[in-house]
Amino acid sequence: MRRATIRDVAAAAGVSIGTASKALNGQGKLRAETRERVANAAQQLGFAPNTLAQALLAGRSFTVGLITTDSFGRFSIPVMLGAEDALGTGQISVFMCDTRDDPDREQRYIEMLSARRVDGLIVTGRRIEPRPPVRVAPSIPVVYAMTQPADGGAPAVLPDDESGGRAAAGHLLGIGRRRIAHITGPERFLCARLRARGFAAALSEAGTEPCGDILYGEWSERWGREAAGQLLAGRPDAIFCGSDQIARGVADTLRAVGRRVPEDVALVGFDNWAPMALGALPSLTSVDMCLEEVGRIAAGHLLAAIGGEHPHGVHTVPCRLVVRESSAA
Amino acid sequence: MRRATIRDVAAAAGVSIGTASKALNGQGKLRAETRERVANAAQQLGFAPNTLAQALLAGRSFTVGLITTDSFGRFSIPVMLGAEDALGTGQISVFMCDTRDDPDREQRYIEMLSARRVDGLIVTGRRIEPRPPVRVAPSIPVVYAMTQPADGGAPAVLPDDESGGRAAAGHLLGIGRRRIAHITGPERFLCARLRARGFAAALSEAGTEPCGDILYGEWSERWGREAAGQLLAGRPDAIFCGSDQIARGVADTLRAVGRRVPEDVALVGFDNWAPMALGALPSLTSVDMCLEEVGRIAAGHLLAAIGGEHPHGVHTVPCRLVVRESSAA
Repeated sequence: MRRATIRDVAAAAGVSIGTASKALNGQGKLRAETRERVANAAQQLGFAPNTLAQALLAGRSFTVGLITTDSFGRFSIPVMLGAEDALGTGQISVFMCDTRDDPDREQRYIEMLSARRVDGLIVTGRRIEPRPPVRVAPSIPVVYAMTQPADGGAPAVLPDDESGGRAAAGHLLGIGRRRIAHITGPERFLCARLRARGFAAALSEAGTEPCGDILYGEWSERWGREAAGQLLAGRPDAIFCGSDQIARGVADTLRAVGRRVPEDVALVGFDNWAPMALGALPSLTSVDMCLEEVGRIAAGHLLAAIGGEHPHGVHTVPCRLVVRESSAA
Repeated sequence: MRRATIRDVAAAAGVSIGTASKALNGQGKLRAETRERVANAAQQLGFAPNTLAQALLAGRSFTVGLITTDSFGRFSIPVMLGAEDALGTGQISVFMCDTRDDPDREQRYIEMLSARRVDGLIVTGRRIEPRPPVRVAPSIPVVYAMTQPADGGAPAVLPDDESGGRAAAGHLLGIGRRRIAHITGPERFLCARLRARGFAAALSEAGTEPCGDILYGEWSERWGREAAGQLLAGRPDAIFCGSDQIARGVADTLRAVGRRVPEDVALVGFDNWAPMALGALPSLTSVDMCLEEVGRIAAGHLLAAIGGEHPHGVHTVPCRLVVRESSAA
């Protein structure tokens, strides 16, 4: 059975579609008798209160678009969950759009979201690197989360990777380690450079410096295994790793050469990715980027922008250290 | 600046909202002059083609709801990506709703989706176990993916876990292994029982049987490490694991006691979860549930149902074995 539309209701009540809309939404100047006739027709036809019609009349759709380049990966998902929380369960609905890093696909999604009259856009990704801004009508506010626009034109909410590097170094210094090495991902990643910078700054303030060169490589267990081998001659008593996967590889190499974690070498990862950090033997201390909080704050900025405010600039969310067995005092 | 609504266009053109809608959508019987007047007004006011208005008139919203109990976890995400593909980039938009296993939250989402006039619903989760059916008006078709309704009333698309167990056993037999053990997750999980059944059936057809009891436990590396220790006395030459995480734990124990993978013991995991399977040393052969295909097929059934057909019953998608170093011949 075809679902009743507002057109059916209008026809049954003998009024125009515009009048039927007004009656159902309690808007406009209508006689009580007309409102009642429309309400009765709607009830008889099983016409439920229709968000589409309300949106059309209000000029708002109570929807936002969420565009990700991360294929709903492990960085964009917590951002999305946090945004969903902040937008209220079912109050504002989220259209999910996965661009798969394809600019044409992204543009098609933006056109679709514009046609659907979204009230705003959240753009997220897997890297904090500046990206080309999305091309959307100026009437639609945009907030970036876990990524930022190259032109700085719209607000962005980012994890504070530098604070994460500081937190890791501070913790390892706090448990008495002094020969602290750092193995991380590719140097071309802004987050890798920021984490290394925070790490080195905290050591410097404590009157020490990294044990050996900072080893940039890739975000993989394989690289962790290889880099740990390169560091061993320097006899580090702690290794801060730019990802939990790197830390897993480092742990493999330490085990293979008979160095105990944490007794001989304390280990700290990054991402606090539960299956990796909790599955590790011993379980892995890790830096958490609080990405749900990043998503919540981004959604808050978007709501403010939809409400007529003009949030702008880059906002950072501090990282949080989660201590487990790999760096127990 | 407030965005122009169809009401503004109608007022500017001196016609009713219904007439303005018809004119913009190329529907109904209108004079060419009226259409042109409305089109001009729309252009002057910057009123873009409005999917909301089109949907209202067509009785369709070109949106579907996707409800997950998996917090967009690693099982629901590929299902979602497959569904998104099948629904066409931007042709039909997807409202994402994460119920976080909370029935009240689920019901609020379903009410919201009904009010937004979704054309249909896809329900997904992290387990193939039967679940209570969603309570939604019969006019809205529902398809389950990676989960199934307890009442069997709506179509469901599931990975064929039993075929996955068969594929793993067949492969290990094919590379000449005869003492093949199985370590898996909790026995209360339907998928664990189905994988074990397929595994045992394939061995039986080859005239052999599992090496030792099938060890049910938990979906963790920790359990893999522990269970492998229990199996070692039986001297298996291959171990099929119910998840990649279990297989990672098994590999740890084998390494610790000096058994080589794959020379002494071949290893097969389940899930083909890239970071786990590729990060393993050696890289892990694994069974892939083809969840994107599950999502694509579910979306296809939903489109058929929206189009007036009546798909029903449980559809299974065969698993696919991905061979890597851990079971190289």
